[in-house]
Amino acid sequence: MQLQPEKAGPLRSLRICALAAGVTLTTLASGARGQAPADTALLQQARAVLAPLPSNFATPDAPLPAGRVALGRRLFFDPRISLDGTVSCARCHQPALYGTDGLAYPRGVENRINPRNAPTVLNAALQFVEHWRGDRVSVEDQATEALLGPASFGLPSYDVAVARLKALGYGAEFAAAFPGDTAPVSAMNWGRAIGAYERTLATPAPLDEYLRGNFSALGERARSGLATFLKVGCTTCHNGVGVGGAEYQKFGLVKPYWAETHSAAIDSGRYAVTKNPDDRFVFKVPSLRNVAMTPPYFHDGSVATLPGAVRTMARVQLGLELSEDQVGDIVAFLESLTGTLPDAFVRAPTLNAAFVP
Amino acid sequence: MQLQPEKAGPLRSLRICALAAGVTLTTLASGARGQAPADTALLQQARAVLAPLPSNFATPDAPLPAGRVALGRRLFFDPRISLDGTVSCARCHQPALYGTDGLAYPRGVENRINPRNAPTVLNAALQFVEHWRGDRVSVEDQATEALLGPASFGLPSYDVAVARLKALGYGAEFAAAFPGDTAPVSAMNWGRAIGAYERTLATPAPLDEYLRGNFSALGERARSGLATFLKVGCTTCHNGVGVGGAEYQKFGLVKPYWAETHSAAIDSGRYAVTKNPDDRFVFKVPSLRNVAMTPPYFHDGSVATLPGAVRTMARVQLGLELSEDQVGDIVAFLESLTGTLPDAFVRAPTLNAAFVP
Repeated sequence: MQLQPEKAGPLRSLRICALAAGVTLTTLASGARGQAPADTALLQQARAVLAPLPSNFATPDAPLPAGRVALGRRLFFDPRISLDGTVSCARCHQPALYGTDGLAYPRGVENRINPRNAPTVLNAALQFVEHWRGDRVSVEDQATEALLGPASFGLPSYDVAVARLKALGYGAEFAAAFPGDTAPVSAMNWGRAIGAYERTLATPAPLDEYLRGNFSALGERARSGLATFLKVGCTTCHNGVGVGGAEYQKFGLVKPYWAETHSAAIDSGRYAVTKNPDDRFVFKVPSLRNVAMTPPYFHDGSVATLPGAVRTMARVQLGLELSEDQVGDIVAFLESLTGTLPDAFVRAPTLNAAFVP
Repeated sequence: MQLQPEKAGPLRSLRICALAAGVTLTTLASGARGQAPADTALLQQARAVLAPLPSNFATPDAPLPAGRVALGRRLFFDPRISLDGTVSCARCHQPALYGTDGLAYPRGVENRINPRNAPTVLNAALQFVEHWRGDRVSVEDQATEALLGPASFGLPSYDVAVARLKALGYGAEFAAAFPGDTAPVSAMNWGRAIGAYERTLATPAPLDEYLRGNFSALGERARSGLATFLKVGCTTCHNGVGVGGAEYQKFGLVKPYWAETHSAAIDSGRYAVTKNPDDRFVFKVPSLRNVAMTPPYFHDGSVATLPGAVRTMARVQLGLELSEDQVGDIVAFLESLTGTLPDAFVRAPTLNAAFVP
């Protein structure tokens, strides 16, 4: 893993060079005021399975030209395109609630209830697929499909979406954001613009600082929690840049999940998408970034608190009964995944004044 | 009216002094690069009936201590207190839509439809009463009553509201915001905190600059519109700091409003509140601040565009058929009422992570 020092200073540069050379730094780090002791073994273990967040989630196929991102931001916050004018992306992904809606099940147009909990949109683009069951291949695909989702935007057709976007005055912005496109206002480009915006929604967190070599970015309890998180096996699934979001897994490896979550209904997960019996109760492993800020937990929002979610996961995935200290430590570590919110997310854009009856 | 220069400079001070002395300033102002011609007569007429916006709407009974305003801001954006978790103040007063929801009729919990259009929350506190029919005496009263409103927050009682606020972890913030109060978490204090926040939501606009003596704050067409606005009689009702919001008036003085608005239903207005026959079709005169940004128009959102609203008002209130030029001029003037959004409105706060099933 490459070191990416953001704020290079003499001490920091020295530490980074020393680390790169495999030198133990206990003396050096302890000598610096306010520095946490340098447990290089823990950091090395962490680096073997976790990775710091990039500044955005651009890909060769999904570049982030500024005009497209700005358009996507406006579309993200605009409810007027939806069937009854009540649903924008921001309805289920509210800035004040760290990109969630604080509900077990999100509501779409005409108050229709979505079948699964709304995950945060923050860092969502780093996941290998979208939705709990992986039935959306990208954030772009998710956005475009949402236009027709009965419990999302609820539109009868993409043509209606395009007509509404034009009536709301978005034509020129689409043309500028998708130059050379003969029909720039399209459902596909709506998804591409929103996807471009979402690919900017990275929330760098204390864990990232730690992974880059700043030991004191994590407090003592968070580092204990990291050690436990690594030791008991959480990183079997929750690994990589997203601390999850990179694979599928059965929810309830050791025992049925609903025995612990007391879910009102049993969701067969990805099986309903693939009809493959191996996919029964299989879900996408969610990214744990910002998990401390996004209750309730699991695909059905069945667990209200983070300690409860940690306890549940240990029982149904690992067959472990964690001590209260261990739960508290892991929660402290998970809190180090709470990142800084991007200004372009916290600040609402101003939309065109237009009313489409 | 007192002059309140915000940015005193030599030329500006000279102009203000000269104005105070009644000196005509055409030569001076025309000589300054980029300055509009100084039509002091128009400015004097405007000042006789309009007034610049104060920086906030504090009153002796409604002070704005910082902690109370900050609490109110968080409460404003928190949907979790509502019956089904879907309604915050910000649902109907969205920052991206200049404090409105872009709907003819707002939706409350369980998708219940409100009987009248949601006005912007921006500058709402300057109005002499709240709601279209004046049945809320203040922004504080409006907020508190909304807790029990079936098509607002929909709670069965204030006790339930208090229990939810405590469960969401607001106890300490209420105690700090209402020191000395033995039961600080209350529906009344919920309204007072949100009211305090709303009293900070002032949006200074080009018109305010103009009223303070900066002729070039309004373009030529806006000044023509102002002249027409004054001449044809709009300021009979739309006057003062709010350019409205200071009195009741019958909607449809000359002919029934629905003859022009083609409203689906006829609303008897304040009559339903007072049972006084004189109040039939009487509504609060809305403030016109930010009117260009807040379609659709009127209590029932029956008119989609600002030119349409201007034409309608001239016909039903003044018995006038305005020319297209006059309508365009007035619209240009009304656009000068579009103000700068407060940062504390555009920026979402971060709420406590808590889930109350």
